[in-house]
Amino acid sequence: MGKIGVAILGATGSVGQKFLELLADHPIFEVTELAASEKSAEKKYKDATNWIMQKSLPKNFGEMIVKECKPNLNSKIVFSALDASVAGDIEEDFAKAGYIVISNARNHRYDANVPLIIPEVNPDHLEMIKYQKYGSGAIITNPNCSTIGLVLALKPLQKNFGLESVNVVTLQAISGAGYPGLPSMDIIDNSIPFIGGEEPKMEKEPLKILGKLNAKGDVDFANIKISAQCNRVAVNDGHLENVQVKFVKKPSAQEIIEAWINFKSEPQQLNLPSAPKQPIYYFYEDKYPQPKIHRNLENGMAASVGRLRECSLFDFKFVVLSHNTVRGAAGGTILIAELLHAKGYLPNE
Amino acid sequence: MGKIGVAILGATGSVGQKFLELLADHPIFEVTELAASEKSAEKKYKDATNWIMQKSLPKNFGEMIVKECKPNLNSKIVFSALDASVAGDIEEDFAKAGYIVISNARNHRYDANVPLIIPEVNPDHLEMIKYQKYGSGAIITNPNCSTIGLVLALKPLQKNFGLESVNVVTLQAISGAGYPGLPSMDIIDNSIPFIGGEEPKMEKEPLKILGKLNAKGDVDFANIKISAQCNRVAVNDGHLENVQVKFVKKPSAQEIIEAWINFKSEPQQLNLPSAPKQPIYYFYEDKYPQPKIHRNLENGMAASVGRLRECSLFDFKFVVLSHNTVRGAAGGTILIAELLHAKGYLPNE
Amino acid sequence: MGKIGVAILGATGSVGQKFLELLADHPIFEVTELAASEKSAEKKYKDATNWIMQKSLPKNFGEMIVKECKPNLNSKIVFSALDASVAGDIEEDFAKAGYIVISNARNHRYDANVPLIIPEVNPDHLEMIKYQKYGSGAIITNPNCSTIGLVLALKPLQKNFGLESVNVVTLQAISGAGYPGLPSMDIIDNSIPFIGGEEPKMEKEPLKILGKLNAKGDVDFANIKISAQCNRVAVNDGHLENVQVKFVKKPSAQEIIEAWINFKSEPQQLNLPSAPKQPIYYFYEDKYPQPKIHRNLENGMAASVGRLRECSLFDFKFVVLSHNTVRGAAGGTILIAELLHAKGYLPNE
Amino acid sequence: MGKIGVAILGATGSVGQKFLELLADHPIFEVTELAASEKSAEKKYKDATNWIMQKSLPKNFGEMIVKECKPNLNSKIVFSALDASVAGDIEEDFAKAGYIVISNARNHRYDANVPLIIPEVNPDHLEMIKYQKYGSGAIITNPNCSTIGLVLALKPLQKNFGLESVNVVTLQAISGAGYPGLPSMDIIDNSIPFIGGEEPKMEKEPLKILGKLNAKGDVDFANIKISAQCNRVAVNDGHLENVQVKFVKKPSAQEIIEAWINFKSEPQQLNLPSAPKQPIYYFYEDKYPQPKIHRNLENGMAASVGRLRECSLFDFKFVVLSHNTVRGAAGGTILIAELLHAKGYLPNE
Repeated sequence: MGKIGVAILGATGSVGQKFLELLADHPIFEVTELAASEKSAEKKYKDATNWIMQKSLPKNFGEMIVKECKPNLNSKIVFSALDASVAGDIEEDFAKAGYIVISNARNHRYDANVPLIIPEVNPDHLEMIKYQKYGSGAIITNPNCSTIGLVLALKPLQKNFGLESVNVVTLQAISGAGYPGLPSMDIIDNSIPFIGGEEPKMEKEPLKILGKLNAKGDVDFANIKISAQCNRVAVNDGHLENVQVKFVKKPSAQEIIEAWINFKSEPQQLNLPSAPKQPIYYFYEDKYPQPKIHRNLENGMAASVGRLRECSLFDFKFVVLSHNTVRGAAGGTILIAELLHAKGYLPNE
Repeated sequence: MGKIGVAILGATGSVGQKFLELLADHPIFEVTELAASEKSAEKKYKDATNWIMQKSLPKNFGEMIVKECKPNLNSKIVFSALDASVAGDIEEDFAKAGYIVISNARNHRYDANVPLIIPEVNPDHLEMIKYQKYGSGAIITNPNCSTIGLVLALKPLQKNFGLESVNVVTLQAISGAGYPGLPSMDIIDNSIPFIGGEEPKMEKEPLKILGKLNAKGDVDFANIKISAQCNRVAVNDGHLENVQVKFVKKPSAQEIIEAWINFKSEPQQLNLPSAPKQPIYYFYEDKYPQPKIHRNLENGMAASVGRLRECSLFDFKFVVLSHNTVRGAAGGTILIAELLHAKGYLPNE
Repeated sequence: MGKIGVAILGATGSVGQKFLELLADHPIFEVTELAASEKSAEKKYKDATNWIMQKSLPKNFGEMIVKECKPNLNSKIVFSALDASVAGDIEEDFAKAGYIVISNARNHRYDANVPLIIPEVNPDHLEMIKYQKYGSGAIITNPNCSTIGLVLALKPLQKNFGLESVNVVTLQAISGAGYPGLPSMDIIDNSIPFIGGEEPKMEKEPLKILGKLNAKGDVDFANIKISAQCNRVAVNDGHLENVQVKFVKKPSAQEIIEAWINFKSEPQQLNLPSAPKQPIYYFYEDKYPQPKIHRNLENGMAASVGRLRECSLFDFKFVVLSHNTVRGAAGGTILIAELLHAKGYLPNE
Repeated sequence: MGKIGVAILGATGSVGQKFLELLADHPIFEVTELAASEKSAEKKYKDATNWIMQKSLPKNFGEMIVKECKPNLNSKIVFSALDASVAGDIEEDFAKAGYIVISNARNHRYDANVPLIIPEVNPDHLEMIKYQKYGSGAIITNPNCSTIGLVLALKPLQKNFGLESVNVVTLQAISGAGYPGLPSMDIIDNSIPFIGGEEPKMEKEPLKILGKLNAKGDVDFANIKISAQCNRVAVNDGHLENVQVKFVKKPSAQEIIEAWINFKSEPQQLNLPSAPKQPIYYFYEDKYPQPKIHRNLENGMAASVGRLRECSLFDFKFVVLSHNTVRGAAGGTILIAELLHAKGYLPNE
């Protein structure tokens, strides 16, 4: 039995390329169509893109003719790596036309009945798509790259001890800004204490992801106060975050660490191909985790946590790291697709 | 009338070199003796040191014969750039022998009657040295590099509105680790969420600096709760800090900004040679301040602040930047010496 | 007597900004007009530009209204920081209209009677402008940033010993690519062995600069064989070059070093404000020169040379460093203007 | 049938760690003993080393008790990652005691009858060990990291067209300096035009490797003139080299490219586990190869070549890149061991 064909919308950008890199030998999905903007359409993919991934562009992708992002594609499942400036309408057009759109863009994250998914955190939210207005089509969204690592680390804490408030300060990698993205003159020998639009995302997205599915097929947001400060640093990949948490019921440090290292969820139980065997790693060495050393753990799909210690202003503080373009973007989206597939949400494959 | 001769203890290390660079053409002080460890003693300075400053080693310094760090120097004023592993005893020996020791080392920062000084913040604390047990000698200390920028920004807030709590997360430059310091393999394409001993310093030093001189010639620590998290990033110079504050009496954003830009203190009133004309700059652009762009403001002696905004967990959050080896080390120590001189604390000059 | 008013064409780009930074307090010239593309025109300069220099934008420049790059400016002397895509025609229009155009762009470097000047190397070539077809107007050009350091180091060698061939491999700073220029994802933890158009410039420009002014007001190119290979590295400023030379008459190492350190030329004799007191420094330490340490020597106007040693394939090899945006661009152009002024080439001032 | 036990000498340093990382799941060899200096001996490996590899330290290695570097180990095959300051004597002691020592250190590279091996280049030189004075023991050496990529690219050229002279300028990664190695303050925003001892190695080693095995079990050095200039740049891994070559018989560019891409040798024919399927890749894009993109090609064991073009001073110039700690150190040494094994040079296994 063959693989399931999928299309990539926005295939020529850096997230689109990462999708191709990660899907090159995927056991379930096969990329059969590449779509991008009008100016790329009709060209061979290799001529339409400036390939910047570290693995070479697979030949079969290079020879594909790029299509336009119009809902006349053959594959009924599309991964959207579209820029937010165009993703809103295009994704909606596809959903209306009966496509399952799994999107990395921010546009529909707060739409009614649109789930915002981290597969280990809120797999039950997928049920929301049954309430969508798109008939056989649907939109499922992936959170922002800096949100995902944070919420992976928070989920076991919320579940076991309840969360009152969360304070987070990030040191984010340059790949989060896309390509060409950040000019090199801005970041070599420098840090930048601002990332446009990032802090509001980090303060709001976790509330939906950690919220509760209700009877109307929507989410009652979690009641947690979050404050975020975001910085860009001279690191290629991997977002490092300094986190402080106040609990409903303060646990011991040991209980927290156990909650993390014992955390498993549906992707692990279903043995999804892209799921990390262990979603959260705890490191006891003070100097860990570090982007360069730990971002590729479990092929970039695990979160690394360390430096748990008491905090005089909150209950505890710690550090979390995750790979922003794998777990935080294309890899996370693919894991959602695998979850959809395993739970029978995908059309007669 | 001649300049006042001073000696540098620990002259061969990176802080010692920075002292020489900054004192090369000083209007009040003249470096007349260089002292270092036994293995450097008796050598010409240029042969004993691995000069790493960006300005060339001034010839007159290069030809000086390095002495040992023993209290038989001619200059009665000594700047200590000694490593903490030896600074404790040596500085005490000098003070006992009647020397005025102005130290960048951490060893005596919490000693009874030893002032911990940021000239703009607590110039009145210098009075403490009259209570010291060292006769005509004295020890005066400079805070940790990451403390100085923070406390410069906090002082006008404390004074005008009162501070209840402070949360700080740092992105610190590699020069803070000295030389050779951090291996390049540890930091290129990386950040490190730990700096040994740094967080306790940042949580305690501000309490002494912002505290109140009491009748016993000591300091009643300020009653502020502080939590610090310290990270190392791939930046040469300039510590960037994400700060959150809760006030006794919450002001408006405009009042805070005015408190900062109007802040002047004794170093400005006395027109000290190393004093910044304006100690604190506020930047309205979201992306500022940045290490590469603002660290050298006022020859590296000013603090740069920006991104002031309300915080859902504290009252306000903002970003502060200061040059860690100038304002945060040698430059700050020299400014203390200038203050001592201007206020008549130095021996018959 | 007042300063001479000058206009900057292309004032909003990174080279234009560098002109403003360097001309802020110039003793001879005063920037009185700023011109840029149509989309910037009519705006205040501070609103039209994304200021990226390390010194703050001087207020008087910020408030100036940007004009279009049309030859109706008041200042008869214009510095061109225009992009090569538009510089050709605009500069010619200005010259035809009687303006003296001193250009950093590559477009007219090989035009008949247009001098390509490094003030210390070929000041006599300025005489060429008398042969230009522009009446009272003229175009004078500045070489490519990577050419300047090389040719400064070569000139005393050519003059004293004659040059047969030159091999050069560069490690060039990112600021050479302008702003936004090189994407950060391309260069952090990376080097790039290619800079578009750079190698042909380095192989040809030295031949004109080191050539001989002839009776027709043009240059007979020098008879030197040059091969260049250009690389981009993760350095903010300062081009480092590995050079090998074969002489007509092979000197000793000592003779070469003396030729360098004794090299002085018209800018030094005329005591031009931007002229380095010593154009070429020689460093005996194996590890020098280095961009971070030596690029700012003499305010970025000197070339630093080191590692002179015999070569088994050529006669000698050595390393040269110069600041690419100061000596290699805006600073070099300003020095040309100062030379023009000192030698009486500028219109009744 | 079991795997062949091997010991690592100098197991705690960065090259030693790389051996462990690469040998963790090796199909032929199994690391059964770890040896290091006296101060590490008797400790568990995980306590004796500061593990800096990107993959986690395998548990079984971490628990091993480190032994001293004395020839009383059980494994008769030892990989030497020893520092040159001690490698000379220790390796000789092991060889005398009957061990096969495959060394990454420079000490014995020019000893009589000691082969200096790149498995694809001079596999026949292994025969030299039969002439060694060590009885059943032997020493086989691996070249310097910057030599290996160069000579891999040169071999097909020498073989097909003959080489007269080679000029090379390197941009070398910081990992080549070991750990802690280069201080971060020396290399962020900087390049260094000097690497101690590197240039003489690059000028001499290729002559032995490309030389001819003679009847006395030694090598007649190749008759090629080589000049090398070595620079350190802010890159983690991957040495990039600008190469110029003059041929005995100048081929066309197309012939050169074909010589490279068709190059296969014994490691490929014998299908050795660490051998790259294709030892040399040619890239037609001007901007390639780049360290960040191509260093991991074929698990870091391939050389990447690009930018072949005619040269006015030599015949051709091009760029070559190879991974300095994999192909250029531990990986190259392991490939030698695999070759020894496949050709029957290892003792009754």
